[in-house]
Amino acid sequence: MQKQPLILITNDDGLNAQGISVLTKCMQKLGQVVVVAPNGARSGSACSITPLVPVTLKLESKEDNLTVYSCSGTPVDCVKLAYEKVVPRRPDLVVSGINHGDNASISLHYSGTMGAVLEACMKGLPAIGYSLRTRASQCDFQPYLEVVEKVADHVLRNGLPQDVCLNVNFPEVPVLRGVSVCRMARGIWQSEWKDTDEPGVFRLTGSFTNLEPDAEDTDYWALDHGMASVTPLGMDMTSYPCFDTLKSLQE
Amino acid sequence: MQKQPLILITNDDGLNAQGISVLTKCMQKLGQVVVVAPNGARSGSACSITPLVPVTLKLESKEDNLTVYSCSGTPVDCVKLAYEKVVPRRPDLVVSGINHGDNASISLHYSGTMGAVLEACMKGLPAIGYSLRTRASQCDFQPYLEVVEKVADHVLRNGLPQDVCLNVNFPEVPVLRGVSVCRMARGIWQSEWKDTDEPGVFRLTGSFTNLEPDAEDTDYWALDHGMASVTPLGMDMTSYPCFDTLKSLQE
Repeated sequence: MQKQPLILITNDDGLNAQGISVLTKCMQKLGQVVVVAPNGARSGSACSITPLVPVTLKLESKEDNLTVYSCSGTPVDCVKLAYEKVVPRRPDLVVSGINHGDNASISLHYSGTMGAVLEACMKGLPAIGYSLRTRASQCDFQPYLEVVEKVADHVLRNGLPQDVCLNVNFPEVPVLRGVSVCRMARGIWQSEWKDTDEPGVFRLTGSFTNLEPDAEDTDYWALDHGMASVTPLGMDMTSYPCFDTLKSLQE
Repeated sequence: MQKQPLILITNDDGLNAQGISVLTKCMQKLGQVVVVAPNGARSGSACSITPLVPVTLKLESKEDNLTVYSCSGTPVDCVKLAYEKVVPRRPDLVVSGINHGDNASISLHYSGTMGAVLEACMKGLPAIGYSLRTRASQCDFQPYLEVVEKVADHVLRNGLPQDVCLNVNFPEVPVLRGVSVCRMARGIWQSEWKDTDEPGVFRLTGSFTNLEPDAEDTDYWALDHGMASVTPLGMDMTSYPCFDTLKSLQE
């Protein structure tokens, strides 16, 4: 008998978030599942790691097909710990989410959900991040589960190219209008600080502007039009086209 | 009389690190300087932000040509706060570092130094990160200052293409053998956790392996051969070549 796929799950909203519970149930249909997730909210933690203080890993539950750990670190720490201290073999797939809040356009750079995905990718593991455009902590994930499973199944069957991972985002709609394989939109965050009662003390907030609202090949366009976006991301951030403009620095 | 360039400086080792003090002195030759840096070490903070607790900004000193603030947040928070609450106009240049430790290859994804640079780039500001391959908290930065200034001067004069920033790394050598405009090397971090006396509690560590040690067009090769590396980075992480392999998801 062929071995079941081994699927590692994490997130950045913490082990008790609704999104990771929904994702776990969905992944259990596809294989054996190990969850290693933060023991609380880690929103906006990007690819951050915890080099200065020790990190705790705690077994929360263990059933036949599902093992769950909590971790005091960041989502990236969770992947690193799971990889080295938890899983019995290399996972066939790493999934992160489902995040409460989208990670389309440049928001992916701040995202702990996607930080975990990038980390898995750096370890050579096929990895997918799922995020839902919502501000609610409780929502109906039902409309998205078919696509969640379809993308995971595709990656389990076909793998992903070397150094590539997937950023999947959903609009908050009762029925998805389709799936768009697309690029990151250009965007900008503005008005990012709210004053508090104390001078010199601020709270992070901000409003996002899509800088190319008419570009149909972008993740934001897909979300704005009721579609799920699937954006392949590469780990090599080198900007090759501008080498020529920098050549004089070598002289 | 033409206005002096306005240069914003930050880092991830904190305001008291030697690297930012050296960088500040160097930038004062080129323009008016505003420093907004973390009030302590923020190593490994990547592009993380502080959405859950308030962030404090504190004026530390103000001279004719140099204003210094400390900030309780991450390097990205520093750039966001500086941009919206501190600088009198859009900076002509944002520099981050000089980091104690290199940020070549995939290490850039974890780097708070580079997180600040990516943030500035997302705001459309020309930005450069500088890092030195060293484990020492006190070191001789003299061998690198000519290149630090040369790269900054180049960017002040010519700007950078849209959505592109620079990752500059130095090897620890008495005399640089040159400057290489190059790409990120592929690499991997392994053996990342050290046990502590307490079961289930670990300390992050790790050893890096360059997966393409013979590739002369990479940052790691440059550093290994006594040269400074200058790597242009693009903010669009979309992996365009693999769109075709994902097309079936749209059906």
